[in-house]
Amino acid sequence: MKQEKAFVKEITPQSKDFSRWYIDAIKKADLMDYTSVRGCIVFKPDGYELWERIQAAMDQRFKDTGHRNAYFPMLIPESFFQKEKEHVEGFNPELPWVTEAGGEKLEERLALRPTSETTIGQMYSQWIQSYRDLPVLINQWANVFRWEKRTMPFLRTSEFLWQEGHTAHATEEEARQETMQMLEIYREVVEQELAIPVWKGKKTPRERFAGAVDTYSIEAMMKDGKAVQAGTSHYLGENFAKGFDIKFLDRDNQLKYVHTTSWGTSTRLIGSMIMVHGDDRGLVLPPRVAPTQVVMIPVGPAKLREKVMEQFDPLFDALKAAGIRVRADLREETPGWKFNEWEMRGVPIRLEIGPRDVDKNQAILARRDTGEKVAVVLDGAVQSVKDLLDEIQQNMFQKALAFREQHSHLGIETLEDLKEHIANKENEQGIPGWVLAGWCGEDSCELKVKEETKFTTRNIPFAPPATKSTCLACGGEAQDTVWFARSY
Amino acid sequence: MKQEKAFVKEITPQSKDFSRWYIDAIKKADLMDYTSVRGCIVFKPDGYELWERIQAAMDQRFKDTGHRNAYFPMLIPESFFQKEKEHVEGFNPELPWVTEAGGEKLEERLALRPTSETTIGQMYSQWIQSYRDLPVLINQWANVFRWEKRTMPFLRTSEFLWQEGHTAHATEEEARQETMQMLEIYREVVEQELAIPVWKGKKTPRERFAGAVDTYSIEAMMKDGKAVQAGTSHYLGENFAKGFDIKFLDRDNQLKYVHTTSWGTSTRLIGSMIMVHGDDRGLVLPPRVAPTQVVMIPVGPAKLREKVMEQFDPLFDALKAAGIRVRADLREETPGWKFNEWEMRGVPIRLEIGPRDVDKNQAILARRDTGEKVAVVLDGAVQSVKDLLDEIQQNMFQKALAFREQHSHLGIETLEDLKEHIANKENEQGIPGWVLAGWCGEDSCELKVKEETKFTTRNIPFAPPATKSTCLACGGEAQDTVWFARSY
Ligand SMILES: [Zn+2]
Ligand SMILES: [Zn+2]
Repeated sequence: MKQEKAFVKEITPQSKDFSRWYIDAIKKADLMDYTSVRGCIVFKPDGYELWERIQAAMDQRFKDTGHRNAYFPMLIPESFFQKEKEHVEGFNPELPWVTEAGGEKLEERLALRPTSETTIGQMYSQWIQSYRDLPVLINQWANVFRWEKRTMPFLRTSEFLWQEGHTAHATEEEARQETMQMLEIYREVVEQELAIPVWKGKKTPRERFAGAVDTYSIEAMMKDGKAVQAGTSHYLGENFAKGFDIKFLDRDNQLKYVHTTSWGTSTRLIGSMIMVHGDDRGLVLPPRVAPTQVVMIPVGPAKLREKVMEQFDPLFDALKAAGIRVRADLREETPGWKFNEWEMRGVPIRLEIGPRDVDKNQAILARRDTGEKVAVVLDGAVQSVKDLLDEIQQNMFQKALAFREQHSHLGIETLEDLKEHIANKENEQGIPGWVLAGWCGEDSCELKVKEETKFTTRNIPFAPPATKSTCLACGGEAQDTVWFARSY
Repeated sequence: MKQEKAFVKEITPQSKDFSRWYIDAIKKADLMDYTSVRGCIVFKPDGYELWERIQAAMDQRFKDTGHRNAYFPMLIPESFFQKEKEHVEGFNPELPWVTEAGGEKLEERLALRPTSETTIGQMYSQWIQSYRDLPVLINQWANVFRWEKRTMPFLRTSEFLWQEGHTAHATEEEARQETMQMLEIYREVVEQELAIPVWKGKKTPRERFAGAVDTYSIEAMMKDGKAVQAGTSHYLGENFAKGFDIKFLDRDNQLKYVHTTSWGTSTRLIGSMIMVHGDDRGLVLPPRVAPTQVVMIPVGPAKLREKVMEQFDPLFDALKAAGIRVRADLREETPGWKFNEWEMRGVPIRLEIGPRDVDKNQAILARRDTGEKVAVVLDGAVQSVKDLLDEIQQNMFQKALAFREQHSHLGIETLEDLKEHIANKENEQGIPGWVLAGWCGEDSCELKVKEETKFTTRNIPFAPPATKSTCLACGGEAQDTVWFARSY
């Protein structure tokens, strides 16, 4: 059992060093690997399959709401970036540039896309002439690049995978409805499929997308109390329409600018899911997206294996036929070693059958989320597994919700209180979590909080759990009630 | 009806200028658009949906044969290319290079991947230690770059989309089986889904992939008689294993190099499909991949429209409920204008209902592939449409097969005969097509044929329709029977 111990020991406990725990957990679960290119990772099959399942859930909803996929060039001429002033300032520092191709130096540098508003704006200006051409509802699945200084697998990498929706509308009202519709789709997928509770809300001007009129986000709390922006939806107003001259002849025979939106989610959802649900034994994957939902392991002495397999094999086939993603681990390792391995990988249910279980016409189901074991009748095992997968999915969401509530602080009114709160939590090795506080609307107050505590505004929730009347930083009248937290 | 005429006139006839016809047809069908970046196109929604359907058909088969998807970085350090000599010579001239990122000049240039053998080889050398780690069966869906001098939408673009499979095996035998298995999957998808008949065969050494031991391909004949290599599968032997030091400890306790394969198909399949099936009225899409399978158009005078719609609407719903990709065109245009539009777009079936059809309890189905019209009973229309879609799919394949046979020449024995054949065909505005001929195995003979006729070796078919005994170029003994043709 030496190997067994070693495995567990290699994952740093969350309480000791959460970032180390995260890296250990995803490495042990074989989700990714580092590469020779700075900040670029390999998405290994189990990691990529998580993305494929997120993609499928998103893509179906995009299509159900009338969007279609398209693909635009990855390379963007430098001159395109100049057309929207805030946009170029926001992204320029992070761009990789192609300067040579086919053995020649290029006349104009080409950026690797950090996002495609510019390329798509350029095309929309050619495609849209009349109100009959609207709305344009397009999504793209693509790789994008942001050459960031500090990287973290899945959460922030030089190259990552994402979807970016880009729509154009005749009116502001319709564009704003689209912005909200897509934010709601994000909430639904993230809460229902990934079991991550999120706050929908509006970003402050300082935190909004470069070139947007309004940015909305869904924000999730990780197990270290930090926040992840899990998806954003932007109302871009006429900013890109003016930059790229996207005009249409309306029903009233007037030439008008379109109103555009963009919205995106990325492979950082994988990282969020791991940080929300994982524990000291490794990953805990929500059943709806887990590559393997059930791992079956025969137990008991080798000489009785044949007897066990007479029940084991048909149950495996029955689970598979029922559409459950089941895997049998028949390797020549100890059950204990296997238990650890599949716990690290976050498989929702471990199903054990031993000789005594066969005698009792039962199988043992061990839940990854709670560690509980239950015996179920063999004949009804398929239904029991299905029910338990649903229960685990729901329980994981409820557990994350309870954790979030436990670490959301609604009674902090001043910056001094916040500093004291942080100091207290740090003293007791606790988690400062999130703070709901008032904000007067001034950039300077937001910046002051950030500089003194590293807490930034996450978003202004649409449905805050309380309403605040005074600004956290200046004590003046609050314009908004805002979530403040440290973030990834 | 001025608009109607204009539409058709804008597609150049195939016999006049096939390349012009191709560009006109895909532009009118709204599949793609040009961009400001040389040789890069936009895949518009109808063009991208063709790719999504090809992807779905391929991906299912990859997974059914035990492969999993992963994602590797797009950027490849220059030094990686140096590790396989033939590979670097083959791809170096076509690479775009990133030389600056995040505001700094990079120490080592990074190539935009033209294919990922090098990156993946580097990772496999770390992942594979023992025979227990084998086989590794991975596929990647990705964008790739080849900065080619002459480009053509879908067929050859600076950036394109593809899948690349990369597998590692303990033995040559197993790797060769994999190579053949994937070639067969390509044949199946291309013939069954895209209705394109192909020849499976082996490429000559001159035409093989840079770094491969053997390259196999499926080759298809376009309507201008030229060939398209529609998919390739490579047995790479130990070449990349040696370049990247991918070794494993075998059961016999010996350290051995793995045997690798790679295989790919790309968005050039979209171009092939158009060039195989299209006609002077525009696209003709195979039902299995067509974004719209049936377009419904109400006909007859406006004052009787209500009566028509009483039958039209429920039929639309019934077709949709049956899983048929149906679209209703209710725009205020003439039926003739609509007919032309949907013919250009290649929709397999046009379904018309007018007042007289309602009286007769019927609908009219017009086939895009043959132009034939049939009346079907309204109550059974869903089944009639389903049957007709199947029939069109089969008929398109048979038609393409007959075309291929008509333009395959098996009786040309010498280079002089070939030149005469070409001259005759060109005199009568005909198509030289493909020539099955013997080849002695010498590069020089292959090159001579190419230089004097622009005919290149396509592949050495596994099951040639005849066996040739003398070399086309030198008259010496034939080692292989080879397809020669001009190609894209
Ligand atoms: Zn203030
Ligand atoms: Zn010869």
